[in-house]
Amino acid sequence: MPEENVVFVGKKGTMSYVLAVVTQMNQGANEVFVKARGKAISRAVDVAEIVKNKFIPNAKVDDIKIATEEISTEEGNPLKVSAIEITIKK
Amino acid sequence: MPEENVVFVGKKGTMSYVLAVVTQMNQGANEVFVKARGKAISRAVDVAEIVKNKFIPNAKVDDIKIATEEISTEEGNPLKVSAIEITIKK
Repeated sequence: MPEENVVFVGKKGTMSYVLAVVTQMNQGANEVFVKARGKAISRAVDVAEIVKNKFIPNAKVDDIKIATEEISTEEGNPLKVSAIEITIKK
Repeated sequence: MPEENVVFVGKKGTMSYVLAVVTQMNQGANEVFVKARGKAISRAVDVAEIVKNKFIPNAKVDDIKIATEEISTEEGNPLKVSAIEITIKK
């Protein structure tokens, strides 16, 4: 089961994730966490900005956290990547 | 003259910017602003995490702001890009 109120931004087009956030907010979520790792971090920032500026005018960025997470490569080796979590609230 | 205490992250290798932040802090800056736009945003997060975790243990991320900025393309057309500003403090 996907975690509630979380949109994990990956390699799809930006608008897919914008739509996911907007849908969750229109279905009653007052708070959505936009998360991303590595190169997708820039896209997560785009998602938050587009939601706020174009779709949900009363939404605002409530908090932004960054961290370093350790993931496993396909060969099973540990790899450190940066991560971001943007909290959008209305 | 470059703005004081600001490191603008672009297309160079991550460690160039890490070194720039570390140098500013070692020269007495208690606060450095790491700024980036567009795809360089992910690299700015890497820079902040590496400074904090590997070089300046008492440094912490004090604030993170995101915004939308309008720049001009080479053809002179307006283009909106996301931007980030990470405040590192010790």
